[in-house]
Amino acid sequence: MELRQDPTTRAWILVGKEREKEDVKDTRCHFCRGNEDLTPKTIRALYNQKGEWIVRSFPDKSPIFQIEGNLDRQADGMFDKMRNIGAHEVIVEAPGHTTSLTSLSENVIADVLKMYRERVSDLKKDRRFKYILVFKNHGSLAGSLIEHIHSHIIGIPVIPARLERELRWAKSHYDMKGRCLFCDIIYQESKQKMRTVFENKDFISFCPFASRFSYEVWTLPLIHNHSFENNLEKEDVIDSLAQILKVILLKIERITNSYHVVFHISPNEYSFRTIRGDIGTIVDDFHWHIEILPRTERESRLQREEEFYINTVLPEDAAKMLREM
Amino acid sequence: MELRQDPTTRAWILVGKEREKEDVKDTRCHFCRGNEDLTPKTIRALYNQKGEWIVRSFPDKSPIFQIEGNLDRQADGMFDKMRNIGAHEVIVEAPGHTTSLTSLSENVIADVLKMYRERVSDLKKDRRFKYILVFKNHGSLAGSLIEHIHSHIIGIPVIPARLERELRWAKSHYDMKGRCLFCDIIYQESKQKMRTVFENKDFISFCPFASRFSYEVWTLPLIHNHSFENNLEKEDVIDSLAQILKVILLKIERITNSYHVVFHISPNEYSFRTIRGDIGTIVDDFHWHIEILPRTERESRLQREEEFYINTVLPEDAAKMLREM
Repeated sequence: MELRQDPTTRAWILVGKEREKEDVKDTRCHFCRGNEDLTPKTIRALYNQKGEWIVRSFPDKSPIFQIEGNLDRQADGMFDKMRNIGAHEVIVEAPGHTTSLTSLSENVIADVLKMYRERVSDLKKDRRFKYILVFKNHGSLAGSLIEHIHSHIIGIPVIPARLERELRWAKSHYDMKGRCLFCDIIYQESKQKMRTVFENKDFISFCPFASRFSYEVWTLPLIHNHSFENNLEKEDVIDSLAQILKVILLKIERITNSYHVVFHISPNEYSFRTIRGDIGTIVDDFHWHIEILPRTERESRLQREEEFYINTVLPEDAAKMLREM
Repeated sequence: MELRQDPTTRAWILVGKEREKEDVKDTRCHFCRGNEDLTPKTIRALYNQKGEWIVRSFPDKSPIFQIEGNLDRQADGMFDKMRNIGAHEVIVEAPGHTTSLTSLSENVIADVLKMYRERVSDLKKDRRFKYILVFKNHGSLAGSLIEHIHSHIIGIPVIPARLERELRWAKSHYDMKGRCLFCDIIYQESKQKMRTVFENKDFISFCPFASRFSYEVWTLPLIHNHSFENNLEKEDVIDSLAQILKVILLKIERITNSYHVVFHISPNEYSFRTIRGDIGTIVDDFHWHIEILPRTERESRLQREEEFYINTVLPEDAAKMLREM
């Protein structure tokens, strides 16, 4: 596989044959404690007092990126390509056969978040990566094939198209107003209260004004912070995030059993210059956050082919329903 | 429903309740000749010598845009919104119960293309619209619920996010090189021949270098032309396009029965200034084209939530297979 850039949109696409997957005859759950022989070697784990793991990360068995080698970015005539260098890790979030984050206690969710923080910090040390994707696909409509709860953490050598747009417009807003775009959104949402779903001492959750999915919910730190992993250095912030995530996911699961949880975090520091044309202002103008994107059976007619989203539930109605649940 | 702009990506999202659909008891095909009482009044039709229609357009019965009124673009605090003003039309492409364009003769496909041309030209006269979407969803995986062949033509007051990116990068390429980005792509594709699928006197079809879908095929006019509707003023160009479309779709249908056909055409003239910062250069730097996006059962893990596409068929392999079919 290799990364190729579409010259008409500048998005990077991963193209090429996937590695053949081994035909696994073993019917045991690959992710349950005791079955570690079915998965690659542990990268990092958190343990209980008995010395048994409670959260565990390891390389994906069929990774879509490979860890060894240089990027070898090169031209192919007018086109641009590079090798699919990256780190593709899986985090298993409970030792028992658990199928949703919401069945874990807030303390255990806090441990899961600590693991995200550690893996992000560690992968950011690899200067070949520009961004660390952190996401969870939950339920069949969200494309999840394994029910035991897990997330993916992937270090990649490019900035995903959607995040690049967010960075661009956040910078443009900051250049014009001298304020963080996301802080401005939080200010209006907390004042209007029409789209808020939940709030605690550190975080706010609301259905965004232009939600592209029905019952979409964003969660942001109330106090400006560009860095997920630095923000989560504080234990009480982790606890707040664990609380609000559990509250929101419990509400979402009453509407649909399929959703994506996507973290939008700051890119690797060294890549700022490349993508911004200046250094370090991302600290002022980017605001990390989590997007929960529910999936439902019905997909609208135009949704995909033109990236023209249609959402048939008003965000104000969605927020009211979620608030009152 | 209303259009709302996501301040973090500047994409416009259509949000709000859809109109209740009438519960239709009639089991006749709505689109077959003779059943016109089941659909709204004809906007425009082409007729055979007996005076029977062969291609027919009419307003969508459950339109997602409404035709009457002003845009009323306004601020809602820091947010931007406008009414869902637009024209949503359906084109039925054959009077009999036909389920694919490929079962029509090239002459009839040429008539269908004439109808597209006419509706686009007509809708472009409405200065409330910035763009005319022309697309066909074919097959259940592409979200098509009605099997009788038809397309959608929708005049909308915004530029779709994907097209806006194409326009931006095409302009940037032109500013830097003084050449059309798409002409440069065509030049390299015709020289390398690795990704070409078919070519006739007026058009070239190839699998793009960074295809985001497996077996994706783009078709472009060989001679630079920004305007779909002007280009198709020439009868022989229409005939060439009908030929190449039929050839390509026959090949695609041997791989999958579900695909989108999406036209990327120039936006309405009057909106150039708004989106470009200068006037008229779109004539030089935009190149209209058709994207055929096949859909298959298997969707990749990352495809949607981060707009990070994974395509497991190399475009060179796809093109070779399609060429030899």
